[in-house]
Amino acid sequence: MTISVGQVLDFLTAPVGELDGTVDTLKSGSRDEAVRGISVAFTATYDVIRRAVASGSNLIIVHEPTYFNHLDETDWLSGDPVYERKQSLIASSGVSIFRLHDYIHEYKPDGIVEGMLSALGWEAYADPDEPTLLTLPQDAGRTVRSIAEEAKRKLGIASVQVAGNPELPVARFGLAVGAPGGRAQMAYLREKDIDLLIAGETNEWETNEYVRDAMDMGLSKAMIILGHQKSEEAGMRTVVKLLRDAFPALPVELLEIPSALRRI
Amino acid sequence: MTISVGQVLDFLTAPVGELDGTVDTLKSGSRDEAVRGISVAFTATYDVIRRAVASGSNLIIVHEPTYFNHLDETDWLSGDPVYERKQSLIASSGVSIFRLHDYIHEYKPDGIVEGMLSALGWEAYADPDEPTLLTLPQDAGRTVRSIAEEAKRKLGIASVQVAGNPELPVARFGLAVGAPGGRAQMAYLREKDIDLLIAGETNEWETNEYVRDAMDMGLSKAMIILGHQKSEEAGMRTVVKLLRDAFPALPVELLEIPSALRRI
Repeated sequence: MTISVGQVLDFLTAPVGELDGTVDTLKSGSRDEAVRGISVAFTATYDVIRRAVASGSNLIIVHEPTYFNHLDETDWLSGDPVYERKQSLIASSGVSIFRLHDYIHEYKPDGIVEGMLSALGWEAYADPDEPTLLTLPQDAGRTVRSIAEEAKRKLGIASVQVAGNPELPVARFGLAVGAPGGRAQMAYLREKDIDLLIAGETNEWETNEYVRDAMDMGLSKAMIILGHQKSEEAGMRTVVKLLRDAFPALPVELLEIPSALRRI
Repeated sequence: MTISVGQVLDFLTAPVGELDGTVDTLKSGSRDEAVRGISVAFTATYDVIRRAVASGSNLIIVHEPTYFNHLDETDWLSGDPVYERKQSLIASSGVSIFRLHDYIHEYKPDGIVEGMLSALGWEAYADPDEPTLLTLPQDAGRTVRSIAEEAKRKLGIASVQVAGNPELPVARFGLAVGAPGGRAQMAYLREKDIDLLIAGETNEWETNEYVRDAMDMGLSKAMIILGHQKSEEAGMRTVVKLLRDAFPALPVELLEIPSALRRI
């Protein structure tokens, strides 16, 4: 039985219904194409596309933009050598690339958060009504530093950034994956009575300075910044699982990628 | 002779003339106040305000926002414990806080870039018409890594982030301080025929991924991310120098601050 790109996308968006103004669009390829294999990745880097095509996939499901901006606008990139080469690889391979960002965050529960909690082994700490809000067992004796070390180990991160006191005891904390914006991050710290916010990515002049001031005031607030990629990548395992269950005849692989940055 | 806050601000903005829609406003205090001393800092953290007041300053000149957002809007912070305590310290101290951001970047040359080039000892490399564009002496034998190490040492940064190959030879590079946005950073890499962009702060899904793709394509492009604060803080020495020359009777101090983040 042939499964089309459109059928796979309809399956992935069905739990939410149709979203208006979403960035979750087909960035290349066609809904009518017959799917031979699916690669799932955090983002469609040049290398991810090459690896996906080499492994026989003709559909790539990613969480982040392909063309270096949230809306995947390309007019401004016309003539850019990086863009042109990437576009040429995409066109010659005929691969379909679909961004699954807004929809998966609208799953109940959020599919990225669900995958991250599983990767971190923190499901038991999560509030059933608000899975990003985590409460540790009484007398767990955890600190910002010990949680940072656990996240590094479980997510394969070389190092994380910490604002506030690493030795601060933590009873409740929030897991705000990705880059929801400074106001959302600060609102979480303010409204949820948490000691620690685990963030994906921040703007320095926003949440970082808020936490610095809070610490200078003697308030019990700290933040761990995992990096955007590592704060969401393991969440894409949710997609792999859903696709394997729904389309058992199709090869579905997860392409994990190293961080784009190294620390020197 | 009494010097008012307004006189100091007029002096600092005079080289540019009046800018429309600028974020460079008086965040607290009054133009009519007589200045007793001036503290210059990257940003008015809670601790900076306390230190400035303790040292006798009643005017603080900063580069970044005071209330954790670019426009220094405060409605959304009403009732927030961090905001309320900061506001209370500012009000009780009577200190005037002025943001000098847009104006100093409009100085000819850009006052922040001028201060950074001086701190880095890179004035001789700078293109006279475009001081952020740096050309190393022929056969200097420099690499991304050696430039990263030099920047760390001269700016007092514990570590920097690098995208691309640290061993890439560098002949020409750009110094894009602060967070000018992904499109500006990518345009610089595309249009200026540079091997390396030194950035202050990026969004992960923008310039980081552009450089990752360029590297995967075998193009000679790399990026060093200094962190926003350390990419501009030494630039505020320009302000200290200008104020000391213009107002020799006034005490003017630079309050340097550690990074808000540590790496674990």
